[in-house]
Amino acid sequence: MPLSYSERAKRSLNPMGRRLLHLMDEKQTNLSIAADVTTSHELLSIANELGPDICVLKTHIDIISDFTPSLTAKLREIADRHHFLIFEDRKFADIGNTVKWQYEGGIYRIASWADIINAHLVPGPGIIEGLREVGLPQEKGLLLLAEMSSKGTLASGAYTQKTVQAAEEYQDFCMGFIGLRKLSDNPSFVTMTPGVNLNESGDKLGQQYLTPRIVIEERGSDIIIVGRGIYASKDPKGEALKYRTEGWQAYLNRLKS
Amino acid sequence: MPLSYSERAKRSLNPMGRRLLHLMDEKQTNLSIAADVTTSHELLSIANELGPDICVLKTHIDIISDFTPSLTAKLREIADRHHFLIFEDRKFADIGNTVKWQYEGGIYRIASWADIINAHLVPGPGIIEGLREVGLPQEKGLLLLAEMSSKGTLASGAYTQKTVQAAEEYQDFCMGFIGLRKLSDNPSFVTMTPGVNLNESGDKLGQQYLTPRIVIEERGSDIIIVGRGIYASKDPKGEALKYRTEGWQAYLNRLKS
Repeated sequence: MPLSYSERAKRSLNPMGRRLLHLMDEKQTNLSIAADVTTSHELLSIANELGPDICVLKTHIDIISDFTPSLTAKLREIADRHHFLIFEDRKFADIGNTVKWQYEGGIYRIASWADIINAHLVPGPGIIEGLREVGLPQEKGLLLLAEMSSKGTLASGAYTQKTVQAAEEYQDFCMGFIGLRKLSDNPSFVTMTPGVNLNESGDKLGQQYLTPRIVIEERGSDIIIVGRGIYASKDPKGEALKYRTEGWQAYLNRLKS
Repeated sequence: MPLSYSERAKRSLNPMGRRLLHLMDEKQTNLSIAADVTTSHELLSIANELGPDICVLKTHIDIISDFTPSLTAKLREIADRHHFLIFEDRKFADIGNTVKWQYEGGIYRIASWADIINAHLVPGPGIIEGLREVGLPQEKGLLLLAEMSSKGTLASGAYTQKTVQAAEEYQDFCMGFIGLRKLSDNPSFVTMTPGVNLNESGDKLGQQYLTPRIVIEERGSDIIIVGRGIYASKDPKGEALKYRTEGWQAYLNRLKS
């Protein structure tokens, strides 16, 4: 019988994974918004308006054209107020020594405000070790990109399996995966699935969409990541509620199965 | 019989690939410096001091703690004066729609000052199409990461082969590879090899080193990327000359073979 998010939190060796799993059950949401916007104003508006409905806000800080450090300070304050986590979707993909600096330093100082980050395993396990040196003392969490939703992705088969194995080996820092389905029998890992949309079937640059029910109930993933389907709609708040309800119902159905 | 860089420039379908191959023969250098430094002052010092010896300056703009747009303007001016290209080692690794914004926008505006960028094929060919929408009209060049120098990298075997095939399909924008050896019989592709060092054997986060002779003469790569071995030495200018001479001699030996 499937375990609840809170029951799984008890199994997690990563503090951020525990926080997220508890938060989801408390707040009754497994919805994450992908805020793919290019101005501070839009990003803060999304965080303010949709914050009460989500467990995770996914950001791309490096596409914000008017970034200043006050943006991430404000974002942090909104996240704490509305009780959601911030996931900077940086997709780290370099050797350990470089990602350490990219995570901690530069003008973005990602480690100072993001709860969760992600990385590709393509450089080998040194990338986890580099990020871990920075993130572990601060009780941050890392998601490994085990699968992607884009057409022709090379993250499949043996690549995906090696990524899952690496997460098992670094469970103190790896809290789960970006993937299209449940990838491990270890209940502590959280799987977040991008490319979720109730309506569309894709974009012209290879993105392919799935529905919340397929993702959570059939495939056993944990969190639906929704982007343009919500924030680019005429009624973002109404759309967010629709996805939140669909995603949560799919989770409840899974628990009963 | 191996072709010279200039002869290969004639075969290239990518303007930046042609520029680079010509530049190397004219300037008689196949040395690239990896400027893995964290302040504007250090980055500009390296560009100024070592610019006359290199064909490409490899940057990580997102580890510079005091970045302002004037830094990249100054860097551009130095590159034009000392006749080298700027390669922002961003390792793009997201879906097409996202990398487009990461390349063109944000506060770094990479496309406005970097001649060359690189990307992992892990998201599928949409990543090339997204970057190409921005870079092609500006005659920029893309290197695909076909292999990496770090321990346990997943960029090998079928992954590497698929990356080489993708470059063949987008030759107007893909100018070559990051790799550890010549990966294609197409002479227009430029291969740049990281992790080159005359002395050391690695670092504690999985980086593994090779010598210029092995890389250029034995393995048929084109450009040696040297980082800490030069800029962290007591005499960076002297060390750069040593690597430049070694790298160029290895190229001349290869031409004679």
